[in-house]
Amino acid sequence: MAKTRVGIINVTGYAGVELARILCQHPEVQLTSVTGRSAAGQLLDDFFPHLKSTGLTIEARLGEVDLAFSAMPHKESAQEIMPLIEKGLKVVDISADFRLKNPDDYTQWYGFTHPDPNLLTKAVYGLPELYREKIKSAQLVANPGCYPTGAILALAPAVKEGLIGPDIIIDSKSGISGAGRSLNLTTHYTEANEDVSAYALGGHRHLPEITQELKLLSPESSLAITFIPHLTPMTRGILTTAYAPLVTGKLADGKKGEEELLNLYRDFYKDEPFIKVIATPPHTKHTWGSNYCHIHPAIDHRTGRLVVISAIDNLVKGAAGQAVQDMNLILGLPETTGLESLAVYP
Amino acid sequence: MAKTRVGIINVTGYAGVELARILCQHPEVQLTSVTGRSAAGQLLDDFFPHLKSTGLTIEARLGEVDLAFSAMPHKESAQEIMPLIEKGLKVVDISADFRLKNPDDYTQWYGFTHPDPNLLTKAVYGLPELYREKIKSAQLVANPGCYPTGAILALAPAVKEGLIGPDIIIDSKSGISGAGRSLNLTTHYTEANEDVSAYALGGHRHLPEITQELKLLSPESSLAITFIPHLTPMTRGILTTAYAPLVTGKLADGKKGEEELLNLYRDFYKDEPFIKVIATPPHTKHTWGSNYCHIHPAIDHRTGRLVVISAIDNLVKGAAGQAVQDMNLILGLPETTGLESLAVYP
Amino acid sequence: MAKTRVGIINVTGYAGVELARILCQHPEVQLTSVTGRSAAGQLLDDFFPHLKSTGLTIEARLGEVDLAFSAMPHKESAQEIMPLIEKGLKVVDISADFRLKNPDDYTQWYGFTHPDPNLLTKAVYGLPELYREKIKSAQLVANPGCYPTGAILALAPAVKEGLIGPDIIIDSKSGISGAGRSLNLTTHYTEANEDVSAYALGGHRHLPEITQELKLLSPESSLAITFIPHLTPMTRGILTTAYAPLVTGKLADGKKGEEELLNLYRDFYKDEPFIKVIATPPHTKHTWGSNYCHIHPAIDHRTGRLVVISAIDNLVKGAAGQAVQDMNLILGLPETTGLESLAVYP
Amino acid sequence: MAKTRVGIINVTGYAGVELARILCQHPEVQLTSVTGRSAAGQLLDDFFPHLKSTGLTIEARLGEVDLAFSAMPHKESAQEIMPLIEKGLKVVDISADFRLKNPDDYTQWYGFTHPDPNLLTKAVYGLPELYREKIKSAQLVANPGCYPTGAILALAPAVKEGLIGPDIIIDSKSGISGAGRSLNLTTHYTEANEDVSAYALGGHRHLPEITQELKLLSPESSLAITFIPHLTPMTRGILTTAYAPLVTGKLADGKKGEEELLNLYRDFYKDEPFIKVIATPPHTKHTWGSNYCHIHPAIDHRTGRLVVISAIDNLVKGAAGQAVQDMNLILGLPETTGLESLAVYP
Repeated sequence: MAKTRVGIINVTGYAGVELARILCQHPEVQLTSVTGRSAAGQLLDDFFPHLKSTGLTIEARLGEVDLAFSAMPHKESAQEIMPLIEKGLKVVDISADFRLKNPDDYTQWYGFTHPDPNLLTKAVYGLPELYREKIKSAQLVANPGCYPTGAILALAPAVKEGLIGPDIIIDSKSGISGAGRSLNLTTHYTEANEDVSAYALGGHRHLPEITQELKLLSPESSLAITFIPHLTPMTRGILTTAYAPLVTGKLADGKKGEEELLNLYRDFYKDEPFIKVIATPPHTKHTWGSNYCHIHPAIDHRTGRLVVISAIDNLVKGAAGQAVQDMNLILGLPETTGLESLAVYP
Repeated sequence: MAKTRVGIINVTGYAGVELARILCQHPEVQLTSVTGRSAAGQLLDDFFPHLKSTGLTIEARLGEVDLAFSAMPHKESAQEIMPLIEKGLKVVDISADFRLKNPDDYTQWYGFTHPDPNLLTKAVYGLPELYREKIKSAQLVANPGCYPTGAILALAPAVKEGLIGPDIIIDSKSGISGAGRSLNLTTHYTEANEDVSAYALGGHRHLPEITQELKLLSPESSLAITFIPHLTPMTRGILTTAYAPLVTGKLADGKKGEEELLNLYRDFYKDEPFIKVIATPPHTKHTWGSNYCHIHPAIDHRTGRLVVISAIDNLVKGAAGQAVQDMNLILGLPETTGLESLAVYP
Repeated sequence: MAKTRVGIINVTGYAGVELARILCQHPEVQLTSVTGRSAAGQLLDDFFPHLKSTGLTIEARLGEVDLAFSAMPHKESAQEIMPLIEKGLKVVDISADFRLKNPDDYTQWYGFTHPDPNLLTKAVYGLPELYREKIKSAQLVANPGCYPTGAILALAPAVKEGLIGPDIIIDSKSGISGAGRSLNLTTHYTEANEDVSAYALGGHRHLPEITQELKLLSPESSLAITFIPHLTPMTRGILTTAYAPLVTGKLADGKKGEEELLNLYRDFYKDEPFIKVIATPPHTKHTWGSNYCHIHPAIDHRTGRLVVISAIDNLVKGAAGQAVQDMNLILGLPETTGLESLAVYP
Repeated sequence: MAKTRVGIINVTGYAGVELARILCQHPEVQLTSVTGRSAAGQLLDDFFPHLKSTGLTIEARLGEVDLAFSAMPHKESAQEIMPLIEKGLKVVDISADFRLKNPDDYTQWYGFTHPDPNLLTKAVYGLPELYREKIKSAQLVANPGCYPTGAILALAPAVKEGLIGPDIIIDSKSGISGAGRSLNLTTHYTEANEDVSAYALGGHRHLPEITQELKLLSPESSLAITFIPHLTPMTRGILTTAYAPLVTGKLADGKKGEEELLNLYRDFYKDEPFIKVIATPPHTKHTWGSNYCHIHPAIDHRTGRLVVISAIDNLVKGAAGQAVQDMNLILGLPETTGLESLAVYP
């Protein structure tokens, strides 16, 4: 039986090449077309020497496929995707172009008028832990951003179960690959190495995405979220530390409350193949190269606050891996197919 | 005129050797004695090849000096210092043994009964930006911890001026040298490299120190501080991100409020030689090897929160540099003597 | 049909845990027993949170298996292995204890008298590219050292084909994981980070191993090999730069000679699944986490010298991956089984 | 008395800004003018927040100064310098434009016809350890390249004393700052981090410079030098490992020969303030941020080869520090003025 043909639009960025790595090892689909503007005409495995021989040439336009991933930058991604949707293709979009339900958010946060608000209503937010069933029947899946993946997975159980009040602070620490493969002084080795810094203090584009999803989990609450991203000198990984006041009376005092909290999280994620709720603070290193998310919920008893820490690989669970997880759901494959690789430690 | 003779107890840890680096380049004092247990008998500049020829041999016990620095671990430091105080020596203690005013804090946080509560009341907390005059006449200065230095400097103006409410969250990101020169799996290269993690979620020993000092700045308030330290893969540096709700009505709305905030911080630190209040988020790299602290206060207008970010070199302003700044004050020297070196960027 | 049961002696070092990562994802064998001295009694996947749930407890002594890997330090490894060989088990030894044919080399280089010189003669050096057929029928395979793997693969075609004279210089640059998981000041993060240094100038233990194998490829020559290893601040990877004088008349002048050289190398390795001879200098990053070795042979026309550069992941092709490759050969499985993972780039 | 006014052409690259750091802390000169093309009009200390307040604005053209440093790229540097020389200014050129004595080398290695071969004959190669007296009276000093500084200092005593034969191999490992501040995929953080690679196998531009200087030390010999540079993941530092056959009969056998070698090196550099000949292999980290060069000569007794290892900070002794050392000589100042800073370890 012929394998499903899949393609990648813009394979030359880090999300694109990570998709290529995963898909060319995937046992149930065949990567048959990849595009890239400046690299068009080159052999994929010359361009990326770590890939195995696929025989693929990087093309200027996508060839015939059954399902397409778009790893284009936002705004351009929508333009690539709309005609594919028109033709009836299944699409997983790595960009932000179909994540936000409110078209005005695109004007405010991304600086462009969304070209197809109607399609926005049909797109499904591709976080399997929250929208598994909808993803299975979606034509267009909007793959979550890297920071939102870590933040939403850290907070979803607490928000959903009404454990915390609305004052949420999310402090995230990202590796540099999250800033992409395009050249920039900020990500020049000599500038980023041996440095930690915060950025986007005026508001990062992932804030409306985090806010949208947490509000959907607790529609009656009026969340006040501060989200500050930081760059840390490593290639891959996001560690998210989330803080919120615990609602009194929901958890027992002391040690017992911590156990209840851990159990509540474990229960929430009990059927999730890629979520590991752990009893000690996670290390980004333990998720390196894998689709896993490690989560540790804790209580600051002195102040009555919840502190939850999550770790992911921003290019896998935070981008390409999650997109393949979505693809598996769309195609009716076992959700973990092609994603079983364990983290490469140390 | 003979230079003041200074000595370092336990020169072989990172705070100790950083003291040696600064002191052997200091124009007004003479480093005349250094101690170290396992290394006793070795030449200082064989043991640390980056130092210049001092002719000093690492000794088992401190020779005759006019002023001593102790870079011993806590609990042992007090034991070394008490007889020196008895003899009338001036002492700057890098350890935590004389930082906390309440002797019970040592029982609770450090697990030992403080051996000299009376001396605790005489020790001065060595943060020149808050206690300059007291330091000048102190016999014993308790040099602040690395995290407290970054956190207190970030928050002092806001707390002192009553800008913020009591719900404070401090999220700090430290380089690995803060964990010392003693071997440990956590700081084994292969474990710490390419990793970010949180630790001490149950309460870090620097929390009572931060709390004590911020409360002294606002005695009537009941602060509720959550402090979570993180390890990041770099040798030096601490970036602290502090969050707190702004009291309404203190600052103007919008852009104007930000200017007022920046001016308030600049005014607070206007005579400080080592504090640089800046209009953009700081980078730890810009303080590397220097005694500077860069601070950027900002407003999250969506939620009405203050976000302040500070950057220091944990071994200089966070340890040895600040100790020398204290020494300069004690000896009546210009405060910046021997500390003028700019950060080594990139 | 029951899978072959395999076990790991000393799973808690980096070679051991890397074996565990590969073996617990291997489709044709079952990891059924792992040992570790200090960690005995703990669950394997608590001890190493990046591993998946194996249900295995770390034991003090190896349980019943069909094939064992020893990741013990040298000298101790032989002691563990001898009784297993006696019992008829197949064994792959990651240590150096059965790599050298001449028992006197153990006295000279490792400081102990080899306990079983007879077994030395039966052990097969586990470099499949040179000894594939012998490995298939071996009871005991001595897995090559990390540096020798990179150096021998770089030089084997040139030595075997008589391209070069005997004056060989091998300059290797290793990531820090090669130094193991045991604590050491050299591999303390703060010491190894942002540092490059050479070591073992008096003679590294991998020199007799490299010499033995290159001499076997060219028995009549009298090789004079200088090998200097270096530590570089990264977790994984070895880049080896090998220099030797070209014998005149073997290769054409200029560009044509380079093509002949490239073809000679490609031809030598034409059936090798894990060797990639490339036309540009390799990057260790492109082999990260994979069993591949990338090799680039070049000519310094000004001096008539061969310069060959090879890149491997020291923990995979340089240790655990190659050991599993050997196991596949011993068990009659396709050689690449469980080792197909591509490098994780970037 | 008015301080000597000095200026920097192209302050915005890494050599330029490192000059600014050193010069604005120099007690005997005044930095009065800095230029930079894209940054013209900005305040120097806004552009580089680690610098102290100089009051300088980055200009498009150099203001009036007594001595100028050019940190322009090659070819452009000569164009900037020629009119200054015409006007009688003293100039230290960080670029390669006046290092090579043979004008044809510029055509061959740099791809341009040298605009002023006559000036080439007047320029002095600015390695104080070899040309101190000439530098003192030079109008134009050509500051050595970073790799040549490490390589020549490592080999000069051996070449000068006739210890070695002509077959020299130089394997250098550089930090990434050597590649400059201009953006490039090779020095993009995510590409350079956790990677070691060789480059310029066809011949690096520093080869003719190394060859020229070593030949001048041994005019009758016909050196055959292979030089291969490597990139290693750190910000600063070059470790050079040089290999050459020892001429028989020059040094005693065994341990005694090593002592003779060490003494010969120590004697050669006995009056040098920045050269430290050491008895153990050097670490780049021990020279970080300083003008020191650490050198360790050793013997590979098995093969009769000399192995010399040198460590420098490529931006200090390999660029800006050495340029200031030259300036001190030109101005008749003590050679170490403004360069006494010890390395910042760890």
